[in-house]
Amino acid sequence: MSCDFQALAVAGVRALSPYQPGKPIEELARELGLDPAGIVKLASNENPLGPSPKALEAARSALADLCRYPDGNGFALKARLAERLNVTPAQLTLGNGSNDVLEVIARCFADSSSEVVFSQYAFAVYPIVTQAIGAKGISVPAKDWGHDLDAMAAAVTERTRLIFIANPNNPTGTVLGREAIEVFLQAVPERVLVVLDEAYCEFLEDGSQDDSLGWLSRYPNLIITRTFSKAWGLAALRVGYSISSAEIADVLNRVRQPFNVDSIALAAATAVLDDQDYLERSQQVNSAGLRQLSDGFRSLGLNFIPSAGNFIAVEVGANAAAIYQSLLRQGVIVRPVAGYGMPEHLRVSVGLATENDRLLAAMAEALREQGDVRSD
Amino acid sequence: MSCDFQALAVAGVRALSPYQPGKPIEELARELGLDPAGIVKLASNENPLGPSPKALEAARSALADLCRYPDGNGFALKARLAERLNVTPAQLTLGNGSNDVLEVIARCFADSSSEVVFSQYAFAVYPIVTQAIGAKGISVPAKDWGHDLDAMAAAVTERTRLIFIANPNNPTGTVLGREAIEVFLQAVPERVLVVLDEAYCEFLEDGSQDDSLGWLSRYPNLIITRTFSKAWGLAALRVGYSISSAEIADVLNRVRQPFNVDSIALAAATAVLDDQDYLERSQQVNSAGLRQLSDGFRSLGLNFIPSAGNFIAVEVGANAAAIYQSLLRQGVIVRPVAGYGMPEHLRVSVGLATENDRLLAAMAEALREQGDVRSD
Repeated sequence: MSCDFQALAVAGVRALSPYQPGKPIEELARELGLDPAGIVKLASNENPLGPSPKALEAARSALADLCRYPDGNGFALKARLAERLNVTPAQLTLGNGSNDVLEVIARCFADSSSEVVFSQYAFAVYPIVTQAIGAKGISVPAKDWGHDLDAMAAAVTERTRLIFIANPNNPTGTVLGREAIEVFLQAVPERVLVVLDEAYCEFLEDGSQDDSLGWLSRYPNLIITRTFSKAWGLAALRVGYSISSAEIADVLNRVRQPFNVDSIALAAATAVLDDQDYLERSQQVNSAGLRQLSDGFRSLGLNFIPSAGNFIAVEVGANAAAIYQSLLRQGVIVRPVAGYGMPEHLRVSVGLATENDRLLAAMAEALREQGDVRSD
Repeated sequence: MSCDFQALAVAGVRALSPYQPGKPIEELARELGLDPAGIVKLASNENPLGPSPKALEAARSALADLCRYPDGNGFALKARLAERLNVTPAQLTLGNGSNDVLEVIARCFADSSSEVVFSQYAFAVYPIVTQAIGAKGISVPAKDWGHDLDAMAAAVTERTRLIFIANPNNPTGTVLGREAIEVFLQAVPERVLVVLDEAYCEFLEDGSQDDSLGWLSRYPNLIITRTFSKAWGLAALRVGYSISSAEIADVLNRVRQPFNVDSIALAAATAVLDDQDYLERSQQVNSAGLRQLSDGFRSLGLNFIPSAGNFIAVEVGANAAAIYQSLLRQGVIVRPVAGYGMPEHLRVSVGLATENDRLLAAMAEALREQGDVRSD
């Protein structure tokens, strides 16, 4: 082969490192010859409850129409979401997970001449979508593992087109106060779009999860993104959305793929919004699990970052990679976060009580092994 | 609102007209107060058979894991596809429909300094993905409604990075011969990627549907794209893929979203590949339907473009828009193709025999109405 096709890729793509997902259960089972049923996965911030019965029923019904294209406008889901959020359907943009919406936003409003601002230790997809379009990513040093909003506002230049803010943040679980975000929105020029990524907002325990919706009318440069993959338990189906001005949504809807959300996903997401009981159980299981894991990590003498999400970044020290491998051998999958610049932490998703117990026991064993190695 | 957010969009996006999908059955039912069960949709080249039982069963089983993220690497589907196509899994790139793969290819290998070549009357997604990245689209005049490959090869310049070829072509149904494509591949410089879009290849009746796979080793700049949305009957789920060198696939896999194909889609697509009977029935129903529609159009005195796909572009004249509306009122949805520069044609997908009959009867009535209007 005479041609170097990697070299033919556009500049941003040549330098791109793809997203590293949590290891799937089946993959670990294949690699280590383990029984998939015995593996606990606490690696992808998934809902441990299993699916909402209402979502399941709607998904099953929708299977009858497998041969038909989805409704590209997502009429029913947008109508139901608009009602719930007290916005208009024209303010909504649906995505194949909020990953899709984040990417579409970047492609619509930034190019190789732009700067995009995000925080150190923030969601990996922000630098990835920035890099893929050849824009310059500005990673602003974090403060106490969370966003330093003053520094982020100060990082805005003439070339800045977008700012990504995650609240709560993944993978650290840090949360920003309402007042701090409003001060920030006031400080940012209106020509700079602010993307407030609220993938984990349903887990906030202080009743503030919908505060941001009230800001849309005052800050027309605000785009809020949310997902059905976490508290709503539909990660398999890939549904996310943004809420913005209708004007911005019109731009985003031009660029998203016409059938980016599939029929089963549309049906299940529409139905799950009527399952308030499922949402509340998700929240309760998560609150209890956060306490259980926090207490367990303290008992093991481990520091961790207090989290407002459905996961905890726990500090296991310089042997984090070895501890991750030990957990895998014990059939427990968590998430290494060295790629986030946190080589001494592991991110543990909140599971059911029995799963959290498995993790804590496996962690104790992994720490013992490391102690043995050190004392050899 | 002081800011013009449309003006803040990048140049390519500002000028973008989004893809216009076929009208969904539910939308027509809402608009005209019709019973959805009585509406015939022949507008999106969907499989009229209804789903494969094997795909349905696999999709149902996969619903148990709604809370888990999909396998981002699509291990099982790629393994099964690789076996069927006699390629390696590393040569495959999965997409959220082939639309996604086409977009990812354009984003990987072209930018605002590039030219992208495609044919007049070819699939609308080629100019859309070109426009969205700000590249210059070169639309080469068609010959007899099909691709003029000599002219397309001659349109290559120093700036050309990509050429899209659809075979069979949508919306015209034209097909290119094996020899013609090989002569073209020999004529194109290796630094220019050739995307051979074979969304409809399973409907080819001459046994040539897998000829292209043999070219991959000789033309390393060739990327073949295919879909599960047509002959395989999974349009609702959005699964497409490309076959290329492993080197090109590595680039594409960096840019595709990590979970671009959902769990239900992965399961159903993997299973449907074992339903050879379904594929053969799809092909038989399509062959019979093409004959039925062709004969019917001839009886109505209508010209049409002979088609190798699962649709026919029929020439209804200057009143095409009025005829489309008349068909809608009669509960039959077809596809206007004025947006393709074919204002006197309508594209009719092949349906079941009863659906084709409904279309032909409604078309006769629509033509009568137009005759009445003209003779008023």
